[in-house]
Amino acid sequence: MKTAEDRLVQKIVKALARKGRRGLVLRAGDDAALVKPRAGYQAILTCDWFLEGSHFLRDKHPPDSIGWKCLARAVSDVAAMGGQPLYFLLSLALPESHTGKWLDGFLKGLARAARRFDCQLAGGDTTRNREILINIMVTGDVPTGRAVLRSGAKPGDFIFVSGRLGEAELGLRSLPSGRATGHRNNRWFQKHLYPEPRVALGRWLAGKQLATAMMDLSDGLSTDLSRLCTASRVGARIAIDKIPGVNLPKGKGRAQYDVTELALHGGDDYELLFTIRPRQAGQLPSAFQGLPLRCIGEITRGTQLVAIGPGGREGKLAARGWDPF
Amino acid sequence: MKTAEDRLVQKIVKALARKGRRGLVLRAGDDAALVKPRAGYQAILTCDWFLEGSHFLRDKHPPDSIGWKCLARAVSDVAAMGGQPLYFLLSLALPESHTGKWLDGFLKGLARAARRFDCQLAGGDTTRNREILINIMVTGDVPTGRAVLRSGAKPGDFIFVSGRLGEAELGLRSLPSGRATGHRNNRWFQKHLYPEPRVALGRWLAGKQLATAMMDLSDGLSTDLSRLCTASRVGARIAIDKIPGVNLPKGKGRAQYDVTELALHGGDDYELLFTIRPRQAGQLPSAFQGLPLRCIGEITRGTQLVAIGPGGREGKLAARGWDPF
Repeated sequence: MKTAEDRLVQKIVKALARKGRRGLVLRAGDDAALVKPRAGYQAILTCDWFLEGSHFLRDKHPPDSIGWKCLARAVSDVAAMGGQPLYFLLSLALPESHTGKWLDGFLKGLARAARRFDCQLAGGDTTRNREILINIMVTGDVPTGRAVLRSGAKPGDFIFVSGRLGEAELGLRSLPSGRATGHRNNRWFQKHLYPEPRVALGRWLAGKQLATAMMDLSDGLSTDLSRLCTASRVGARIAIDKIPGVNLPKGKGRAQYDVTELALHGGDDYELLFTIRPRQAGQLPSAFQGLPLRCIGEITRGTQLVAIGPGGREGKLAARGWDPF
Repeated sequence: MKTAEDRLVQKIVKALARKGRRGLVLRAGDDAALVKPRAGYQAILTCDWFLEGSHFLRDKHPPDSIGWKCLARAVSDVAAMGGQPLYFLLSLALPESHTGKWLDGFLKGLARAARRFDCQLAGGDTTRNREILINIMVTGDVPTGRAVLRSGAKPGDFIFVSGRLGEAELGLRSLPSGRATGHRNNRWFQKHLYPEPRVALGRWLAGKQLATAMMDLSDGLSTDLSRLCTASRVGARIAIDKIPGVNLPKGKGRAQYDVTELALHGGDDYELLFTIRPRQAGQLPSAFQGLPLRCIGEITRGTQLVAIGPGGREGKLAARGWDPF
């Protein structure tokens, strides 16, 4: 005598079934999940909305991208602390019409992300709703005292970013009308649809105790750098021409897209923003596992965010990234 | 240069500010929360939807009840494992029109529940949405090996429930039209609007190693008993006249409400359903801290759920509780 909800839970658990991690005592199916913490580690807890209309469009985004990205976003928060993602809880609200083929595609993308990020389903909650609602909670861990917070930046620290900024925003803006398919080899669509949280880089920076402050770039550099500076009670000076932006092929898009604006205010890149003491900056390679690491400026006293333009002109950097309100 | 979202987060954190628990290293404001696990304990993780239209009505339920209940529901899952709730993550999606007075009321109820259940805000996610969406993730802990699962019931075990079943459903059904206010001293409205998860009872049963299986009654006895039996691969026989139902005043409601139906299929009571070995049943008091504990039947071999009616007639018990699909 299973209810329809019980059958749906069974389908989800089956799609995401993997050999259990040692610490997972009890997975989906009881009132709650039960996990054995590792001695000498602190637990990291984070959650993220992924909502139809705000974060994705039902008719535009392929279901497997929605499954991948909802987990990638939350895992990125664990990466931003220098932690190792371990388990996730999936809260899913669906129209009944989407419990068949759409759900299969969604679970396929989610299962692929779970393997890729080595993060295992531990539980969740499922219900019915007119719109597709997703909330993902991820827990991970980090050796005690090694987590990198937003609040540790000091005046004089160098500011670094990983990867190229604005690529995901460009992928979003140039999405074709209709559902995005067949663009698997376009770099910008890839970054918009299947972002890669920088878990290995985050863990390496935390493990080496190189980063003094760190966060992930989800809402755009201008907004997120402002948040890091607020948390650290400092200011920042960045050089626009040092920011690694989208690499547009020659002759295309110079008129259509403003590479600087994309890099400063485009969201959803899930690259890491971090600061390093000048005397330790030499220990940082120019790339980590093929991912470029670039110094874009330095932390200053005060609270001002200053951007130095191409001609040496200085201007105030306004937070113009993503803000849902 | 705070964004509107940052200001909203600040308002939430301020409303729920309490002196930090020892294990909470980092609370709301960074990429994720950081928690120090207790040695010798396992972590419990659970999450719950609380959605406008499905779980509450914007114009009917007072905002402080919505704040209280969304946390109570998730805490009840921790109680059902015999655990101690510790921290919660609040995922909130709101229309801009509800970020003022409505949010104040919501946070007031949530803060009251957080104090009552000794469960502290550790983080969350906030965004804008046309409908009010809430997802609460609660983490707690339990001494290693002491968690009570759904799967431990054995044939011959006695089946117990706490409290009276069907009260919350009666409260829901008899809600006045318009927003429910001024009914604070009506027992059934209270149980519908401000349910009390049975944390102390759950911890006591787990600590004494009395319960062989346990879960909370959120979707109705018939549905939840069926789930416990499925997890334990057993059947059950319950006596209808042993189930503690709503105590209706004489002369009122006998025609309007079917007390047995309310008790069997009414959801949202958040009482505990648990099983105990016959030789240990004598150790169970008839009430725990004023909360009645009643034996309603026993676990059987096989998979059948049987209900014995008032005249001794036996019938199959169908799962007719809450199912969103």
